[in-house]
This record gives sequence, C-alpha cells and structure tokens, in this order.
Amino acid sequence: MKREIDLNSDLGESFGPWTMGDDAAMLALVTSANVACGGHASDPETMYATVAEANARGVTLGAHPGYSDREGFGRRVIPMSEPEIERMVAAQIGSLMGVAALAGAHVRYVKPHGALGNLAADNGGVASSIARAVKAVSQDLAVLAISGTELEPASRNAGLAVYSEIFADRAYLSTGHLVPRNRPGAMIDDSAAAADRLLAFLDNDLMPTLDGAPIPLEAHSICVHGDSDGAVAMAQTIRVRLAASGLAFRSFLAPPP
Amino acid sequence: MKREIDLNSDLGESFGPWTMGDDAAMLALVTSANVACGGHASDPETMYATVAEANARGVTLGAHPGYSDREGFGRRVIPMSEPEIERMVAAQIGSLMGVAALAGAHVRYVKPHGALGNLAADNGGVASSIARAVKAVSQDLAVLAISGTELEPASRNAGLAVYSEIFADRAYLSTGHLVPRNRPGAMIDDSAAAADRLLAFLDNDLMPTLDGAPIPLEAHSICVHGDSDGAVAMAQTIRVRLAASGLAFRSFLAPPP
Amino acid sequence: MKREIDLNSDLGESFGPWTMGDDAAMLALVTSANVACGGHASDPETMYATVAEANARGVTLGAHPGYSDREGFGRRVIPMSEPEIERMVAAQIGSLMGVAALAGAHVRYVKPHGALGNLAADNGGVASSIARAVKAVSQDLAVLAISGTELEPASRNAGLAVYSEIFADRAYLSTGHLVPRNRPGAMIDDSAAAADRLLAFLDNDLMPTLDGAPIPLEAHSICVHGDSDGAVAMAQTIRVRLAASGLAFRSFLAPPP
Amino acid sequence: MKREIDLNSDLGESFGPWTMGDDAAMLALVTSANVACGGHASDPETMYATVAEANARGVTLGAHPGYSDREGFGRRVIPMSEPEIERMVAAQIGSLMGVAALAGAHVRYVKPHGALGNLAADNGGVASSIARAVKAVSQDLAVLAISGTELEPASRNAGLAVYSEIFADRAYLSTGHLVPRNRPGAMIDDSAAAADRLLAFLDNDLMPTLDGAPIPLEAHSICVHGDSDGAVAMAQTIRVRLAASGLAFRSFLAPPP
Repeated sequence: MKREIDLNSDLGESFGPWTMGDDAAMLALVTSANVACGGHASDPETMYATVAEANARGVTLGAHPGYSDREGFGRRVIPMSEPEIERMVAAQIGSLMGVAALAGAHVRYVKPHGALGNLAADNGGVASSIARAVKAVSQDLAVLAISGTELEPASRNAGLAVYSEIFADRAYLSTGHLVPRNRPGAMIDDSAAAADRLLAFLDNDLMPTLDGAPIPLEAHSICVHGDSDGAVAMAQTIRVRLAASGLAFRSFLAPPP
Repeated sequence: MKREIDLNSDLGESFGPWTMGDDAAMLALVTSANVACGGHASDPETMYATVAEANARGVTLGAHPGYSDREGFGRRVIPMSEPEIERMVAAQIGSLMGVAALAGAHVRYVKPHGALGNLAADNGGVASSIARAVKAVSQDLAVLAISGTELEPASRNAGLAVYSEIFADRAYLSTGHLVPRNRPGAMIDDSAAAADRLLAFLDNDLMPTLDGAPIPLEAHSICVHGDSDGAVAMAQTIRVRLAASGLAFRSFLAPPP
Repeated sequence: MKREIDLNSDLGESFGPWTMGDDAAMLALVTSANVACGGHASDPETMYATVAEANARGVTLGAHPGYSDREGFGRRVIPMSEPEIERMVAAQIGSLMGVAALAGAHVRYVKPHGALGNLAADNGGVASSIARAVKAVSQDLAVLAISGTELEPASRNAGLAVYSEIFADRAYLSTGHLVPRNRPGAMIDDSAAAADRLLAFLDNDLMPTLDGAPIPLEAHSICVHGDSDGAVAMAQTIRVRLAASGLAFRSFLAPPP
Repeated sequence: MKREIDLNSDLGESFGPWTMGDDAAMLALVTSANVACGGHASDPETMYATVAEANARGVTLGAHPGYSDREGFGRRVIPMSEPEIERMVAAQIGSLMGVAALAGAHVRYVKPHGALGNLAADNGGVASSIARAVKAVSQDLAVLAISGTELEPASRNAGLAVYSEIFADRAYLSTGHLVPRNRPGAMIDDSAAAADRLLAFLDNDLMPTLDGAPIPLEAHSICVHGDSDGAVAMAQTIRVRLAASGLAFRSFLAPPP
C-alpha cells in the first residue's frame, strides 16, 4: 500500500461579491490547490487571496484554467478551435502566475477545469493544445490529469511532468470514465463510503466501477471537492480516515528549493 | 538634436468580432507596441495575433494594462484601492506574458492605459502600486511613463528601468499635463502640424504649451495613436518627416540577446 | 402610530453558479422584493426564479437596477453621463419585465441599487434621469426612494407615484444621510436594537441620528438586508417585534386587480 | 410577381468603443432593422442610438436576441436548456423594449440571431422556447423566421404572426438549408449576381440551390447583411435593381396607428 498521497481541491472560485466554498477550511486539509484563473471563476482579488493563503500554509499551487464562461462556471463546452483553447489556457495560466508573483508564490502545475478538463480527457487534440500552452508558458510546470485519460500521454509527449488524480466522491465506469453527474450514483455523498472506497483503492490500485469489475488506475493525488455543501466535512473525514490507516499527505511535487 | 527615437502605439485593442484600428499598418511604422491585456480591450486571440505580428516585425513588446472595463474602454476611473490596482495590473501583465510565450515572444515593458495611466501620472500611490506589480511579475520589465509624471520616480524607486514618452497629437499645458480630451485644442488633428511640433521639440527638448511658455520634457519615445480614423496616415507622415530630418527609429530597449 | 408597513429587501442577487443570501427565506418575510436586473447582479435564470417565487408568495415585485459592474456589485460609482444612466436603467428594467412576463408576474416599482441609489439620493440630475427612464418604460411604475432624498421630488415631478423607505440596520446622520458603511456605528448589527429603533421611529416618525437630534422621516417601507450573514435572523426578529406591537405587513402598492 | 418586399438587416451590433458596420447607411436602405439586445452584441447606448435612428427614418424595429456570448458574437452554440433559452430571450427582448420606450419607439417583431437562429430553424423545441418567450413578453410581437424552418410552425402554434425571410447573399441547399458559411459557394459576394438571383426568385418564388433543383420558398423579407465590408454597397445594388424592376420596399408590418 501507498505511504503518501496528495489531496487536491478546486479553490479560488469566488467572484467579486460572491463566495464559493470555504477556501480557508479546505486549505487546512489539502496539499495541492487548483486555483481558478479568471475564466470560469475568480478575479485578481480572489486569486491573490487564495494564492497568499495557500502559500502561507505550504500548499502547492496549481493553475486551474477553464472556459471563459462564468455564467456556466466552465461546465459547458464552448465551441472553440484547438488554437483558441491553447491561447485561452496560456492567458489564464499567465494571469495566475502574475498574481502569484505578487504574493511571492509560485504556480507549479496546471489542471484543466470542468468541461475543458473532460474534453481534454477524451480528445487527444484538445489535450495536446493544453499541453502546448502549459509548456510554452513554462517547461517547469507539471500537469495534473484525470487518471487514465488522454491528457496524460499528451502532456508526456510534450515533455512535461504528469501526475494523475482520482476523485474521492465520483463513481467510475468500467471504461475508466467518470459516471456523468446527471446519472444516478454519479456522486458519492456519504463521507464514510467515500473513505472506504479510497482505502480499498489505495490498497491495490483497483477502482470499483458502477457497471462492472474494478479497473486499475494510477493515482498521485485524490481530488476532494470544495464547492458543495458538506465539502469540508467530507474532506475532513477522508483525511482523518486515510491518516488513521497510516497514509501521510504530501504534494506530488517536492517543495521548491 | 537626438539621433534616434522610438515610436510607440497602443495596439491589440480589438475584441471578439470587433476590430479597433489597423494594427498591421501601425506595426509597420512603430518600434514599440503597447498591447492590451484583456482588461479595457483584447482577448487571447487578439493578444496572440498582435504579439506574433509584432514579433515577426521586430517591434518591441509592451503590456498595456487598463481598468477591466470594456464598455468604457478603460477611459473611466473605476474606484479601486491601490492593492486592487496592483493585483489587476499583475494579472493583466501575466496574461499577456502567457500568450506571448506561446508566440515565442517576450514582453519587455509596461505602459498603463487610459484612465489608469492618467491616474498614475498624478497620483504617486497609484504609480507605486503599478510599479510594485510590474516588479513582482519581473524585475526585467521596464516602465514606459508619460514624461514628467509621478510614474517615473515611482518606477525608479522600485528599481525598474524607466523610459519617457511624449504624445504626437496631444497638446500640453504649462503644468506638464496633457490638455484634457474634451477641451478645445486638445488634439492635434493635422499631421503636418504634429510633425512640425515634434521636430521643434526634438531639437531642444522644449514642448510648446497651449497656455504658456514651452516646458522641458525628456523623451525616449513618441506615442502615435492607432485607434482613430486617420491614425495610420498621421503616423506615416510623422515617420517620414522625422526620417527626413535625419532621425533613426529604434526601440528604447535593446533587442534581447 | 402606523397600522401597516411594508418590508422590502434586495433579492435575486445570485449570479450563475454563485448564490447570494437566502432568497426563499427572505421572501417568506418581506412584502416587497427589489429584484436585481442583470447589472450589478443576477442573470435571466436568477431573475426568473426570484420573480416566480415572489409572485407565488404574493410579494410585490420591484426592479432594482444598478451599475453594470458585477465585480464591484454596483457599489462603485462608474463614471457615466446622465443620458447613459437613463439608457442603462431603462434596459435593466425592461430586462426584468421581460422575464417577469414569462413568469406571469408584473414589475410594479423601481428602486435604484447601491452606488447608483446613493448618487440619485444626492444628485437631482441623476435622480431625474432615473425617473425619466422609469416613466418611459411605464407610467404605471412607482419609485421606491430613500426617505428624504432627491429621488423623491425628481420622481414626483416626472408624474410617478413615489414611496419612501428607511433602513432597518443603518444608522442616520442629522443631515438625513446614512452613515457611510466604513464609519463606526454605520451598521446596526444587533437585531433587538434594530427592532427597538424601528418601533420608536414608527411611533413618532422621528429617526435617531448618530450625531445629533432625531430627524423627521416619512416611511412607507422598511428595508431589511438579505445579503449578509444573519440577514434572515434580523428580518425575522424585526417582523416578530413589529407584529407584536400591532403592525400589519402590507406592500405600499395595492395588489393588481 | 410580388409588388412589395421588405429589406431587413442585423443592426445595432456595435459594443462600447467598437463599431460594427455602417448602421446609418444601412438604415437608409432597409425597411426593417433587427437590433441586437446586449447578448451577442450591443449595449444600452448602442441600442438607443440604433432605435432612435431607425425610428426617425420610419424603419420597423425588431429585437435580435442571441446567445450571451460577445467574444463569439452569438455564432457559437452555447449549451443551454430550452427553459434557459426562453428566459434569456425574454430578458433580451425586454431590454430592447425598455430602451426603445425611452426613444419613443416600439419593438414590433423578433428575429433570433446567429447560432440561436440556426438552432431554432432546425430544432422544434428550441423554436417553441423562443416563441413562448416572445408571446409572454407581448402577444403583439411578430416573429421573423428563416423561410421554411421550424420557427415558422412553432411561432404559428403559439398564436404569433409569422413572416419569412430569405437571404440576399447566402446560397441554399436543396434541403432548404443555407450552405454553411465555411463551405465553398456559401456566400454570394458579387452584388450583381445576388440581385439577379433575387429577381429570378421574386418572379416565381423558386430559390436556386447549389446542389439540385430550385426549391419553393415563401418570402416577406430579404435579409441583407450589414456587418461585412461591402455590405452597404451590396444592399444598395440590390435595392436599386429591385426598384428598377418595379418592386416597392415596405415593412412586412404595417406602421403602428
């Protein structure tokens, strides 16, 4: 069984006067923070507050670019060409890096958000566009990909370091895909059940599926959600249960020297 | 008399389906391009097209951050605290740097736009906020300031290289301020008159004013506008007239090694 | 002492994935709802849900236009001419009326939001611009104004019905102005204290001030806030206390026939 | 042969500092103006200027709602449910009606824009959503539909008056669909050729197709584009040629009493 694992969460998703989730509470629980970049959510003030707090707590920073669609929170596929995606992603990563510099912090990896992340999981062309954007902005950036998806080889082919994540509260299909959010059983709402599944998985790297046999998945990180009611409680339960089983929590990226 | 001068223009100010000015024509005339960063204008596609074209022509690239107010084109003062300005400016510079990296280009300096630029000219606190943002993003970035304004000492105090610009088509007051756009005589619409004034100024570094004696101004660059009708023709006239008087056009920043 | 009073609150201020306040709880307490129109907050989905719920509960509907500035939540003065304000307000009222029609509901009055409302309170020109916009859209719309401000005569001069509101949780100055939010004592956070002050005021129409003698104010409605923590609890306390003293809650506008 | 026809064009598509097309020139040529409503283009200032100018010239006003996607100019399908489309369309029509009221003008019909219009042409559910939104806002509004498409029966079923348009510069397929913009021959760039085709069509109501025999189409209006280079010249040529053949230009809607 693994000795160490990373916990990541999508944070910095407030906007102007509107708050999303409880970032301060989540930053006390996770080891990596995927910070929205002003596309699907966030603004310079939110980015700054999030990276400053994450940095103060030693949480590793990632950029979390998504479709520039606040009303849809980046969960709708906006028709864009691959070069358009490449430029949008580069602009968003750069934006977060600019704000992070102001907070004396460093962006270390990139994880695409929502509909863009799902498209990149299945579509090698989109995955390569994202990898090209990441690499152009900085070859030192890693990519955090959904385990078993197209973004892994695309990033590897671009010469980028790649890490893989599984989801704490999403059910899987035997194809390796997540069960779509609108289908029954897609979400695991019970914290104890989520923790049980993770512990079983971490023991043998086999993920149970809703429609068949467990599937092998690689995992450097577990994604815990931060934007729903009960998100903090679930993250807490998972952290406590995993710690009790002997796991240590550490970012998949070593701290900068 | 000077032997060399820089010509700069505000470019990359299109947005989505809307075109502003004739960037291709202006990029054939200027030596430095102030590129909008998605705040008062532009978007990732426009940024990319502008930096790629500027880079191909050897035009030096600057970031041109402004208030995030497309409807007002960054010409309205949006009430913001100095820390808010600092974060907005850092986010915008970073965004352009991200897209520039994708085009294999480098952002070399920063010039604030419109109402933000005017505020930074008069208000030392705002000027220092901008300088702090620039320096945090990269100490290698220079600042292009309106000659004789608060942004010059603020940038110098931050340890940044500073260059000064005068305007080809804007009249001056004896206070050193530009005549506000809504006052008679504010704009010099006649290309020949603009060129005459510049030639006289470049001879003795004394700028004629609308309300008194000429004032001494330092100038590393002349700003020619790119967004109005007749902008290209005026820039062309100025370039031809200055060249005829023996001036060479060269960016105030040496090309990167 | 009054026998009836209206309670109004700013509602429908969510946006896309972001929730503001607890509209369902507030709609059970108020008799008039000021619904955001897509300027400082809201979107067609939020408008629809809010007007449908308000209508189902018999709560009178008002439009709550504000500066088109979501990041600033309409609390920043955006420099605009009076004709620009007029057109912005007309567009926002129209937008809400369109959505209300879809829900089988009717917009009955207009109350300007935030910085726009404060400007209209002091500036007769802006107040008249808003009144002209309201009247052009429909002469049947009333105006809900901060008691004792410029918006009252401006609306009256335009031939519109005008009603006046006082604030449950904001302290007053002897000039009749609200104490600015950033000054000590501006907000009355204690529900019991707020209820006590209202009961005293309703008894004699004299409002206590922070810096002098009580001032006479007319009041057809009491504004209770819906967007802060504890907002629902304060509204509940006020409603219970006022009811206990014999007041009935009724909109300042009669229900449509 | 017809004695009268309407000419319509998509106008009011400027935004903030950016101008689209030459609305003043087009308003001198058309009899109906489809005015953008702040979704894919426009803002309150642009709406006001456009409706005021159209009204002064006796041009009939229509609302031209589109996806709320300025960067994509409403030409991208944004994934939305039918109720979401219904509410978005109602909000946009209402917004234009509010501004029109301020200009003393009346919105008389609705024509959906771009990707929304194309979707409504093929998809009966979306067409019905739009018709429901139109009817809810006002039963007196007519619908202007692409001839031969789903929006015609959907609007008729909702009890709305429906008028049909053909395109001056778009080629047709034998299915009745427009040739997609990205296929060769989709656009008729030559004004004379466009006028010839229209004259032939107006003679027998049969539209030539790129891939087969002419198809019968009903036409109350001809759509001439206003947003491209050469748009005014083409509209002028068409108007002159049709007038020379004896056609009068008149809106499909009678002027209001």
